[in-house]
Amino acid sequence: MAAVQTAHDLATKLVAGDKRALARAISLVENDDPIGWDLVKEVYSHTGKANVVGFTGPPGVGKSTLIGALIAALRRRDETIAALSIDPSSPFTQGALLGDRIRLTDHFLDPGVFIRSMANRGALGGLSEATLQAVLLMDAAGRDNVLIETVGVGQAEVDVIDHADTIVLALMPGSGDSVQALKAGVMEIPDVIVVNKADHPMTDTLVREIKGVLALGHPDDGWSPPVVRTQAAHDLGIDELVDAIDAHRKHIIERGTLAERRRRNLRNEVLELATIKLREEIEAAISEDAEVQTLLDQVVERRLDPGSAAREILRRRDEG
Amino acid sequence: MAAVQTAHDLATKLVAGDKRALARAISLVENDDPIGWDLVKEVYSHTGKANVVGFTGPPGVGKSTLIGALIAALRRRDETIAALSIDPSSPFTQGALLGDRIRLTDHFLDPGVFIRSMANRGALGGLSEATLQAVLLMDAAGRDNVLIETVGVGQAEVDVIDHADTIVLALMPGSGDSVQALKAGVMEIPDVIVVNKADHPMTDTLVREIKGVLALGHPDDGWSPPVVRTQAAHDLGIDELVDAIDAHRKHIIERGTLAERRRRNLRNEVLELATIKLREEIEAAISEDAEVQTLLDQVVERRLDPGSAAREILRRRDEG
Repeated sequence: MAAVQTAHDLATKLVAGDKRALARAISLVENDDPIGWDLVKEVYSHTGKANVVGFTGPPGVGKSTLIGALIAALRRRDETIAALSIDPSSPFTQGALLGDRIRLTDHFLDPGVFIRSMANRGALGGLSEATLQAVLLMDAAGRDNVLIETVGVGQAEVDVIDHADTIVLALMPGSGDSVQALKAGVMEIPDVIVVNKADHPMTDTLVREIKGVLALGHPDDGWSPPVVRTQAAHDLGIDELVDAIDAHRKHIIERGTLAERRRRNLRNEVLELATIKLREEIEAAISEDAEVQTLLDQVVERRLDPGSAAREILRRRDEG
Repeated sequence: MAAVQTAHDLATKLVAGDKRALARAISLVENDDPIGWDLVKEVYSHTGKANVVGFTGPPGVGKSTLIGALIAALRRRDETIAALSIDPSSPFTQGALLGDRIRLTDHFLDPGVFIRSMANRGALGGLSEATLQAVLLMDAAGRDNVLIETVGVGQAEVDVIDHADTIVLALMPGSGDSVQALKAGVMEIPDVIVVNKADHPMTDTLVREIKGVLALGHPDDGWSPPVVRTQAAHDLGIDELVDAIDAHRKHIIERGTLAERRRRNLRNEVLELATIKLREEIEAAISEDAEVQTLLDQVVERRLDPGSAAREILRRRDEG
C-alpha cells in the first residue's frame, strides 16, 4: 500500500516540516479531496505560530519580485518561509510553481523556502476556501512566515488577505485607481504600504497622495501605516519593508489586537466554510433537481419572483 | 388607516409609475422590510421590459457626471429613466439622493427621471440583495431605462453589475490599475468602454492600451466592445455612448444572448438570495447560540479545526 498515503502519515510528515508532504497536502485541499479536510483537522493543533503576511495590490506592481526579495531577507535571518500566490487571472498556473518569476525560482532548491501557486477554479468560494486551508497547512508545517500574495484591488481579493496578521498593499507610480479606491474608502487601509519601482519620477507624488489619504486617520488601534519605498528588482528598500512588518507585528502583539484579529478571522473562516458548503448544496439542487428547474423557468417567465423561488428552494431543502 | 400603506396599494401606484411609491418601495427593500418582499412579489410580472445598463469603474472617473449626461440624452428621446447609485464608500448617502452631484440634480424635478443612492449597510450580501430587488422595482415601475452605477474595480462590485443587460466600464487617463486588471483577466471585459475626461493628453495612450487588451479577443458572441471617448462634464461624446449602448442591445437581441443573459442572471439571483438567507441564519447562530460560541472558542484555542466547526454548526442546524 506504499502508493496510498493516509492522512495520518501525511500529517506526521507535514508537521515534521517535509516539503513534499506539504505540497501534497495542499493539492488535496485544492482538489477538495476529503483526505485534505482530514489532514487539516489532524494538524490544526499545530497552527497559530506562523507570522501570516498578506500582499495585495493591482497587477503589474511587482508583488512577486517583492516577495522574492523579502524571502531572501528573511532567509538571511535564518527564518523559514512558505509563500502562496493566488492568481485568479492565471488559470494555467493551477497547481504549478510560479513559473518564470526569476526572483522566486532562486529559492526553489532551498529547503527553508516553500513556494506554491493556486488559481481560481471557477467558484470564488472554492479558491478562498482552499487558500485558507492551505495557509493552515503551511502554518502547521512549522514555517516561521507564511506569505500570501493576491492579485487585485477589489474587496473579493482583500477578503482572502484579511486572514493575514499583517496586510501589505503594494503600489507603484501609476497606481491611480488604487489610491482613489483608498481615498474613497472602497479599499480598507492596509497595515503597511509599499511603493515599488520607486526610481520612477512620479514616486514622490504617489507617496504624497498616499500620506494624504493616511492623514485622514486610521480607524483602529494607534498604528500609523508606514509607506516604504522599494525597488524590489534591485533589492532596495527590502530591509525597511522587513522592519515595517516586524514593527506592525510587535505593535499588534503589545496592543492585544493580534489575538483579536485572529479570533475575528477564525470566526469569519468558520462562517465562510459553512456558507460555501450550503451554497454548494443549493447550487447542486438548482442544477439537478427537476422541480427546482421548473421554479427557475417560472422566474424567467416572470410568473414567480426570485425571492419566492429562493424561499421555496430553502423550504424544500429543510423538508427534504 | 391612511398612514399604513399596504403592499397592494403601493404596488398599484408603483406599476402606474408613481415616483413616490417607487421611492418608498425601494426604502422597504433596503430596510429588509417584509412588505418590501411582498411588493416585489406582487409587481414581478411587470418586470423584464426595461433596458438595464450597469456602469462600473474606479472612483473618480466621473461616472455620476456621465450618467447625468446620459440621462439628458435619453430624455431628449423622450425615454424614462431610473438610476441607482451603489456606493459602499459613502455610508452617509444611505437613503439619500445623490447630494451635490450637479448633473444629476438637474433632473430632480423631471417626472421622467428617478434617481436614488444606496450605500453598503455592513453586510455585502445585504447591499447586493437590496440592489437586485430595487432594480426589479424600477423595472416594474415602467421605466424605459434602469441605470446602475457602482464604484469599484474588483469582482464584488462587478457581481452586482453582472445583472445588467449591458455593462459599461468607465475609465479615464490615469486608470492604469484597471487596464492592468483587464489585461490580466482579473476583470471581465465589459460590453462598452468609455474613456471619460478625454481632453487629457494621455487619452490616446489609454485608448491604445485598451484596444490592445480587446484585440486579445472577446470570449463570447461576436461583439467587439467599442471604446467611446467622452467629456461628460461638457456633454461631449454622449450621443456616441447612447449609440454604443443601443448597438449592444440590438446585438444581444438579434443573437438571442439577451434572453440567455437574463436567464443566467435570474438563476444567479435566486442562488444568491437563497445563500444570503442561509448565511444570515448561520451568522445569527454564531452570534447568539451559546454552544456555537463554545465551538468557536475551541477553534481559537486550536482544539477544533474551522472545517469541523462549520460542519458541526450545519449539522446542528439541520437537526434543530
